Amino acid sequence: MEIKGKNYIGYSLSSQGDRTFQSYVPAKDSFLPENFHTATIEEVENTMALAKKAFSEYAKIPAAKRADFLIAITEEILAIGDVLLERANLETGLPMARLQGERARTINQLTQFAELLREGSWVDASIDTALPDRTPVPKPDIRKMLVPIGPVIVFGSSNFPFAYSVAGVDTGPALAAGNPVIVKAHAAHPGVSDLTAQAIVKAAQRTGMPDGVFSMLYDDGFEVGTALVKHPASKAVGFTGSMKGGMALFKMAQEREEPIAVFAEMGSVNPIVVLPDYLEHNALEFGKTLAGSVSLGAGQFCTNPGLVFVTKTQGLIAFADSYKNEILKTTSATMLTAGICKNYYKLRDHAFEQEDVSRLAVSEQMSEGENQAQASIATVSGQSFIANPKLHEEVFGPFSLLVICEDTGEMLEAISHLKGQLTCSLMAEEHEVHAHQAIVDKLAQISGRFILNGVPTGVEVCPSMHHGGPFPATADAKFTSVGRHSILRFVRPQSFQGWPDALLPDELKNSNPLGIFRLVNNQFSQEAIK
Amino acid sequence: MEIKGKNYIGYSLSSQGDRTFQSYVPAKDSFLPENFHTATIEEVENTMALAKKAFSEYAKIPAAKRADFLIAITEEILAIGDVLLERANLETGLPMARLQGERARTINQLTQFAELLREGSWVDASIDTALPDRTPVPKPDIRKMLVPIGPVIVFGSSNFPFAYSVAGVDTGPALAAGNPVIVKAHAAHPGVSDLTAQAIVKAAQRTGMPDGVFSMLYDDGFEVGTALVKHPASKAVGFTGSMKGGMALFKMAQEREEPIAVFAEMGSVNPIVVLPDYLEHNALEFGKTLAGSVSLGAGQFCTNPGLVFVTKTQGLIAFADSYKNEILKTTSATMLTAGICKNYYKLRDHAFEQEDVSRLAVSEQMSEGENQAQASIATVSGQSFIANPKLHEEVFGPFSLLVICEDTGEMLEAISHLKGQLTCSLMAEEHEVHAHQAIVDKLAQISGRFILNGVPTGVEVCPSMHHGGPFPATADAKFTSVGRHSILRFVRPQSFQGWPDALLPDELKNSNPLGIFRLVNNQFSQEAIK
Repeated sequence: MEIKGKNYIGYSLSSQGDRTFQSYVPAKDSFLPENFHTATIEEVENTMALAKKAFSEYAKIPAAKRADFLIAITEEILAIGDVLLERANLETGLPMARLQGERARTINQLTQFAELLREGSWVDASIDTALPDRTPVPKPDIRKMLVPIGPVIVFGSSNFPFAYSVAGVDTGPALAAGNPVIVKAHAAHPGVSDLTAQAIVKAAQRTGMPDGVFSMLYDDGFEVGTALVKHPASKAVGFTGSMKGGMALFKMAQEREEPIAVFAEMGSVNPIVVLPDYLEHNALEFGKTLAGSVSLGAGQFCTNPGLVFVTKTQGLIAFADSYKNEILKTTSATMLTAGICKNYYKLRDHAFEQEDVSRLAVSEQMSEGENQAQASIATVSGQSFIANPKLHEEVFGPFSLLVICEDTGEMLEAISHLKGQLTCSLMAEEHEVHAHQAIVDKLAQISGRFILNGVPTGVEVCPSMHHGGPFPATADAKFTSVGRHSILRFVRPQSFQGWPDALLPDELKNSNPLGIFRLVNNQFSQEAIK
Repeated sequence: MEIKGKNYIGYSLSSQGDRTFQSYVPAKDSFLPENFHTATIEEVENTMALAKKAFSEYAKIPAAKRADFLIAITEEILAIGDVLLERANLETGLPMARLQGERARTINQLTQFAELLREGSWVDASIDTALPDRTPVPKPDIRKMLVPIGPVIVFGSSNFPFAYSVAGVDTGPALAAGNPVIVKAHAAHPGVSDLTAQAIVKAAQRTGMPDGVFSMLYDDGFEVGTALVKHPASKAVGFTGSMKGGMALFKMAQEREEPIAVFAEMGSVNPIVVLPDYLEHNALEFGKTLAGSVSLGAGQFCTNPGLVFVTKTQGLIAFADSYKNEILKTTSATMLTAGICKNYYKLRDHAFEQEDVSRLAVSEQMSEGENQAQASIATVSGQSFIANPKLHEEVFGPFSLLVICEDTGEMLEAISHLKGQLTCSLMAEEHEVHAHQAIVDKLAQISGRFILNGVPTGVEVCPSMHHGGPFPATADAKFTSVGRHSILRFVRPQSFQGWPDALLPDELKNSNPLGIFRLVNNQFSQEAIK
């Protein structure tokens, strides 16, 4: 499969503009030969007009057919073969094993949505049958289900070229729900995006989806993304990236004549709070586990643990030694882009320079190649942490700050300064959970996922995973970008009142032809209505 | 029960400020004697501090106890007796029979939430059990459920002094979910609000709820509402009212350091589209039904049908005659406030003055009393409607515009100019539904509730009712303010990873002590986990 470098406007290739850019290879600090054509505003218009038209048709395609489309995407992605992984490796610097795992996850995500569609109960169908003889007024027949909303704009992330990108956590559920998708390809991995877009287009054509169900546009600047978000035909935005980028899109979307939702996942420091007895009994092992979590994937995960709270207690020195030694032993890793790498060292050094912050360890072994991130950890007292809001912010990369509190009272005060988080971890023995209820409550209130005795890295793709958290972790804590419920971002409920059975969607017909779970007159049931 | 006229800050009465206002009696254009104290900014601060504190406690109160609280509210409201209805009648001008019905609906709404809590499955519990032996990495135990978000600000509406006010569609689900509620009482019915607040406070005390679970503040201006929405402790806003008011709150909430959701229901013209064969076969009866719907409750419903689209067809003259004669026969009714009444005539006359608009009928019989609204209908051609956006907007009150299109093609063009609506009605025979798919699709895309052969007035309180629609009908089409799913506005999902059974909420425990429906390893089940 060959990289085209042109915009995918439905089933057509388009390259009206003169501006192009190339793939950057972070490990070599060099560029690959292909030119990617930045879309023009006219191309944005064409794309959105086509998407709007496709919506009317695609929204009515039965769920089972949309499932076939998703499965076809997985087949076409796998059919690209190792070329896709190799390109991703060049463009992102991520190791092949990680990329293999990420591709498998992406396939798994799409497959889970196909299964969700085939099972069908996700539409949350609800039926209240008529009571024509009720007084003083008859009760009408009312039925409700989730329906698609219209074209969805997807911004691929830099750190997951497959799982949070062109065919990732936003595209999968948006397509599953019945919405056309328009991807703004991330400029850090345009080649991977190009190959993936081709796979989706092939799958769409092969399964008879309408032209415009999927489009992808290039831009290494902000113009195309801005035009997409502001376009009246756009109905929602999915984004994973920085706070700055996410909030810029959020503001843009709120200022539209018709405001639309931006489901932005924007970052998190994922605090880990370690209670005294746990630390004492797990000092060495926890040091190892933590070092692994901090340095994993060059720390380029939204669930990277950036803050660790401990108290001056029995196990502290043993733990700190173990943690330090493990970090020293780690090897540097290639970061995603030159900008991300530069920013990592800038923010890390800025943290190192803050009052009362001491460097605890910086990984000593350097890998070959450019844009290498060294895992780095530092310590600070609880009081200095509380006094300095700069230390509460995320440093994207393998950096973590160990906040050493005088006691659990100071620890409670310190964590009271934290904003919303994707995850909070509590490391505690069971009796400590009971004894420190105020700490537990605080962590519960600010976390989307509350972990006991585990590190936050590793996001299981399953129905019970909530990957989202109170602001600013995500723009809307109600929604997850991982797992089946992520489809709820791209639907709305609609009631049908007084419609005869033959004109209702299958999901709401008396006979329940799809055999789904429904709420019928306030009772959950898979039965038909007699 | 006596009206206090003071702010209800949890269980305390507070009247720090000097500014007061009185109840206006629209039918008599006069004021009642009691003074209501506008809250000060300090009182707002005290209220929110108390609410924040109450949240930690209230969020942990078991659902069954919260259900008892809701039922106690219904008992205390009923215990006020006719005094409540009489005060409402004075303050709103709404007739006693309507108020009786509305009180019953309010009791019904609260009772439905109590039942929802007692049944318990609404928390959408999901459990994925651990696979410790999975390779390459073990799968952790992850469980998820909906949890409360924190203090919710409620703005009572003018047009429903019970059902959309102090103990109405926002307060009920917000309290049910486990959030403290702070009501900004509507200045158009402060006495009803005062009595209702006393009922809620009594119920909270009687059922052992924490101080601060409910507060209510007065203001006949905007200062208190603004301070509440901007307060960092506020986590969501419920509002029913005008587009102007809703969007002001929406912007305020989006510009906060931590943006919060404003669930604003802002208005709708609720178009009715009448296809030719339906009109021909139902001309007389539909004229009657429509006139009843337009004039019901002085047209002061968010589901009032403001636009009716017909074609120049066989039944048109018979229908128009019937409609006109029915409107002529209606009697005027008292509007809620002098401002609403004045604005009704202003907007109605403005519509009358538009090019090509002809007055069809104005109700001729006047009731006694001030602030009387006469039901008024007009006609306009499809082309003039299409050309004049002023005619697409809501006129709050008993006004409706009949848009007479040349044919169904022009009708499709005309409705393509409509924005999002709470409801759309299609009056059609079954074969016409099939023959006019483009009209059906358009109405489906812009409506929250899509009615076949029925008028939009009459909002059934049941699970399948979606009372919300694409912008600008509501700020977020994903959410309803009526029915069980309205609770979803005031919760967020939270995952618990790695927690031992004993420390999990009951909803997520292996034994399923509450017997709720849960998604266990991707299967719906009421069973315990072995």
